[in-house]
Amino acid sequence: MRIGELSRRTGVSVPTIKYYVREGLLPAGELTSPNQASYGESHERRLRLVRALLDVGGLSVAAIREVIEAIEDRDRPVHKMLGAAADRVVPRTREEVGEEIVEARAAVADLIERRGWRTDEASPAAEALAVALATLTEVGHGGFAEVLDAYAGAAEQVAGADLEYVARNVERDELVESVVVGTVLGDAIFAALRRMAHVDASRKMFGTGV
Amino acid sequence: MRIGELSRRTGVSVPTIKYYVREGLLPAGELTSPNQASYGESHERRLRLVRALLDVGGLSVAAIREVIEAIEDRDRPVHKMLGAAADRVVPRTREEVGEEIVEARAAVADLIERRGWRTDEASPAAEALAVALATLTEVGHGGFAEVLDAYAGAAEQVAGADLEYVARNVERDELVESVVVGTVLGDAIFAALRRMAHVDASRKMFGTGV
Repeated sequence: MRIGELSRRTGVSVPTIKYYVREGLLPAGELTSPNQASYGESHERRLRLVRALLDVGGLSVAAIREVIEAIEDRDRPVHKMLGAAADRVVPRTREEVGEEIVEARAAVADLIERRGWRTDEASPAAEALAVALATLTEVGHGGFAEVLDAYAGAAEQVAGADLEYVARNVERDELVESVVVGTVLGDAIFAALRRMAHVDASRKMFGTGV
Repeated sequence: MRIGELSRRTGVSVPTIKYYVREGLLPAGELTSPNQASYGESHERRLRLVRALLDVGGLSVAAIREVIEAIEDRDRPVHKMLGAAADRVVPRTREEVGEEIVEARAAVADLIERRGWRTDEASPAAEALAVALATLTEVGHGGFAEVLDAYAGAAEQVAGADLEYVARNVERDELVESVVVGTVLGDAIFAALRRMAHVDASRKMFGTGV
């Protein structure tokens, strides 16, 4: 198809599509004449992926470029590709953290050992967790760490469901893409569900009828 | 304390503190002379909250202003304040969505009924969930909705733990602030834990030793 049709099918404007090609988020179309390129279904799929990561995931163009490089690097063993993809979509962290971070990192290392997780306490995700815990302490809610095991148990359930879905439904070629999509959109889905469950729980605890 | 000390204690620069005061994120200090203002512990606490929402939560200045207005509005019943606070920290959504949204909204309404949640299917969180599900369908992973109940069960556990913590540890005056902090930082904490649990689960499923 031509770029105009790709634009109509995805709702992304032609200048924006050209920008994504220049930025390396989308492969160039196949030239059919000096001034015309042809795009296929793989372009449409990639374009939808880029928009999902941008709009729902809130990733930057630079982060999306790294994620796409991870998706396209087919030489690494599967679990290493998955780890690299996960590291690149880690939630934001702070540039400066106070001394609370030392204690928070120890709490994260304890948690990993307690849960028997085969994961690295120096990974970006573990560091992001330590930063969030240190921030809680700074704002006077350090006691919130009491609920960490409830969160960890819930995360194990969600991760197990994610991996079962991936193992059952996804071709190896699409594996990393699926994990990236699932990671980013899964965060959005869980955050929304947590809000809804909060409203339900707080109505039951504090509310009257409606 | 003077503004310089507030800056040293929190690691936020003096011009940034003045900017937050102008933007309504932080109350002005008490004037002790025409050119000097005095700040107290409540300023320090509020400033840490603003930084947490900005840095870890990734909220905009405008969103933080709305959250703070919700925190300071003490006239509403507790569960309504909590609902308003939750609505204002809803994850981002997309501006344009395709026809998949109709089916996704129906799936959300079904989920609410199936789980017996006392929550509104027209709330911002429910709409954010519908948008994320519609986006999954657009990128070719509509089947991911299979795992929605696993996510919802995990969200119930997390929300239950959150509310228990709040009910046990928090004075009524701090209630809404706690929920806002817990909502934003809890998202970051859960996202990090989910990554770590993914790495663990994928090592067990696809990996070798390391």
